[in-house]
Amino acid sequence: MLLPIITLTTDFGEDSPYVAAMKGVILSINTQVHIVDLTHLIPPQDLRHAAHFLSQSVPCFPAGSLHVVVVDPGVGTERGILYVELGKHRLLVPDNGCWTLLAGDSQPLVIRLEERQYWRDQVSSTFHGRDIFAPVAGYLSLGIPADKLGKRVSEWVRLEQSAPRIAADRLEGEVVFIDHFGNLITNIPGSTLEQLGEEIQVAVGHARVERKVRTYGEVPPGKLVALVTSAGTLEIAVNQGNAAGQLGVGVGTPVVVTRRG
Amino acid sequence: MLLPIITLTTDFGEDSPYVAAMKGVILSINTQVHIVDLTHLIPPQDLRHAAHFLSQSVPCFPAGSLHVVVVDPGVGTERGILYVELGKHRLLVPDNGCWTLLAGDSQPLVIRLEERQYWRDQVSSTFHGRDIFAPVAGYLSLGIPADKLGKRVSEWVRLEQSAPRIAADRLEGEVVFIDHFGNLITNIPGSTLEQLGEEIQVAVGHARVERKVRTYGEVPPGKLVALVTSAGTLEIAVNQGNAAGQLGVGVGTPVVVTRRG
Amino acid sequence: MLLPIITLTTDFGEDSPYVAAMKGVILSINTQVHIVDLTHLIPPQDLRHAAHFLSQSVPCFPAGSLHVVVVDPGVGTERGILYVELGKHRLLVPDNGCWTLLAGDSQPLVIRLEERQYWRDQVSSTFHGRDIFAPVAGYLSLGIPADKLGKRVSEWVRLEQSAPRIAADRLEGEVVFIDHFGNLITNIPGSTLEQLGEEIQVAVGHARVERKVRTYGEVPPGKLVALVTSAGTLEIAVNQGNAAGQLGVGVGTPVVVTRRG
Repeated sequence: MLLPIITLTTDFGEDSPYVAAMKGVILSINTQVHIVDLTHLIPPQDLRHAAHFLSQSVPCFPAGSLHVVVVDPGVGTERGILYVELGKHRLLVPDNGCWTLLAGDSQPLVIRLEERQYWRDQVSSTFHGRDIFAPVAGYLSLGIPADKLGKRVSEWVRLEQSAPRIAADRLEGEVVFIDHFGNLITNIPGSTLEQLGEEIQVAVGHARVERKVRTYGEVPPGKLVALVTSAGTLEIAVNQGNAAGQLGVGVGTPVVVTRRG
Repeated sequence: MLLPIITLTTDFGEDSPYVAAMKGVILSINTQVHIVDLTHLIPPQDLRHAAHFLSQSVPCFPAGSLHVVVVDPGVGTERGILYVELGKHRLLVPDNGCWTLLAGDSQPLVIRLEERQYWRDQVSSTFHGRDIFAPVAGYLSLGIPADKLGKRVSEWVRLEQSAPRIAADRLEGEVVFIDHFGNLITNIPGSTLEQLGEEIQVAVGHARVERKVRTYGEVPPGKLVALVTSAGTLEIAVNQGNAAGQLGVGVGTPVVVTRRG
Repeated sequence: MLLPIITLTTDFGEDSPYVAAMKGVILSINTQVHIVDLTHLIPPQDLRHAAHFLSQSVPCFPAGSLHVVVVDPGVGTERGILYVELGKHRLLVPDNGCWTLLAGDSQPLVIRLEERQYWRDQVSSTFHGRDIFAPVAGYLSLGIPADKLGKRVSEWVRLEQSAPRIAADRLEGEVVFIDHFGNLITNIPGSTLEQLGEEIQVAVGHARVERKVRTYGEVPPGKLVALVTSAGTLEIAVNQGNAAGQLGVGVGTPVVVTRRG
């Protein structure tokens, strides 16, 4: 016996009976699954945050895991619900683009859910997590083939994102994610930093960062640094401190990297 | 092999070593259980919140699950601890009424825990979650019959709750739960709304809601609406916003529904 | 088949993709493990909090559980990562003392991780949780012997802690942990209270507590009491209230117990 893995990512909150209800519905269909909470603290209806969260976590999971994502401002409207196969990854997602950062240039297989025999008998108009996502996830974990769920589609909503602007002596991007420590994750690829050499300066809003390091501990506690994150992009951090709080910046703040001097 | 399901609902907080200790004690008695966190963020000692949380989540779980609830202002006093069978549901709860909303008119089987051989050797007076609830849950998951735990009782504490007042042209109730999105869940049954027709107005504290919808997305973001929730009761919400914050209301705020005109 | 137990304790936050990434890496190496979240809300880089958290939770777990602790202000520096066997407990920890409160006077077996074939191919300098701790935990759960991971060492960092001062008529200590309810946990052993008799007074910062009880419910809601906790040390609490908030005290506040009169 192998326990299939179903992960949950929602904006329902840790205090929510909605998460508990989804777990109950999944387990009612298949008691022998391993439910793994990724997070339930995506900021309410924040698709961009969800996208960055998924792109940092889903790639670490083994093939065959099913990732259920319910960040769904359009619940109850005509927006579709999609089953997606993307390389080794499988997802159930609202058709709102929350997953498309993961796709990159690869060609996903996408099925729009239509077959109501895999849904709850009564489908509410405000809680598709319990009434559609959870039962479909349960049936998929039992081995129901995905092509029974609906029809394959070739169009879906994509998340718009601003690409960084890369020039020989200047990199322009923005803060795209702020983690629990207040570290500012940007969309500037770490690989592009090399072309500027070691002597760089980074402007984040009104602040200047003049120290590039390999890891936080190279500077004393409280000092502001730039480094390349574990996800491969430029990060601004304060060793043992909170860069977002200290600089007063948020997601969307422009970031510019130039040579120092 | 089937993994038995034990769910945990507490007011211990997500940062608490007490939750971790309970998990350890359960797993020390039976390493092969599926522990499912429902929530640990019930507001401290808030029995009414716990009751509404359970009534929205427990019914979704499969028969045979054991639901352990530790919201227990009376810990260490003479209040009892109960094992409850309620239709397909099984619970371990303090005898403080936190579970009685679930019961409705059905007749539960209730056993008061007495047999100390299923408790920890040392029982503290402040942490029955670790010392009584967790080991009893572990033994139940191993198949110990419930009637070994203590004596059947026919009286228990019931949660008092104000019933809504339903008249032909006026429904009066109150806010009973506020979810993570700030949606206001009331105790007015959705079914009673029909008798007033489509043209209704809802008074919540000092605010008026004049739009009844089927789902949030029928109105622009920021607009206040009334709808019937996934749990079957009247809900006041702001599309992609926070009704509780915007209206400044809380649990207990009166809600009155009348015909518009 | 038995599911091995791996517990996770971090300061990454409940909203963090870093926790999710660690779970994914563990499951990629061994899909059949039971991952148990202890907490992800250790205050950032607070080793003392982590130490008290672990000493209240790890002892409850069954032999054979593997406890992975990532509270790691020195990530990416030369600090080591340790595999520890301590009686029945097994841990993976940064070598920063976060686990040494658990050890007491017992002699642990300690191995410093060195064998990179059990790490991820690419090891970042900011996220050893994903790149070293998680894969090593996965391999240990598959049965890889610990002595394959690195060399046994006899020195490691120990957490400094102030011991309470115990005299015949006066006990001096401090607040070492504040729980979710605002209860103040001290480092004064409950057993030493007995020598002062029942009539004691406790000074906590500028406040005086004159009531010693066995459990919270012996006094009316809102009343300040002293009691011996479920962990065996002196605790200051407010029945159904928040002592830390009411007294305005924090970790490190001196606590002095004397005879009353």
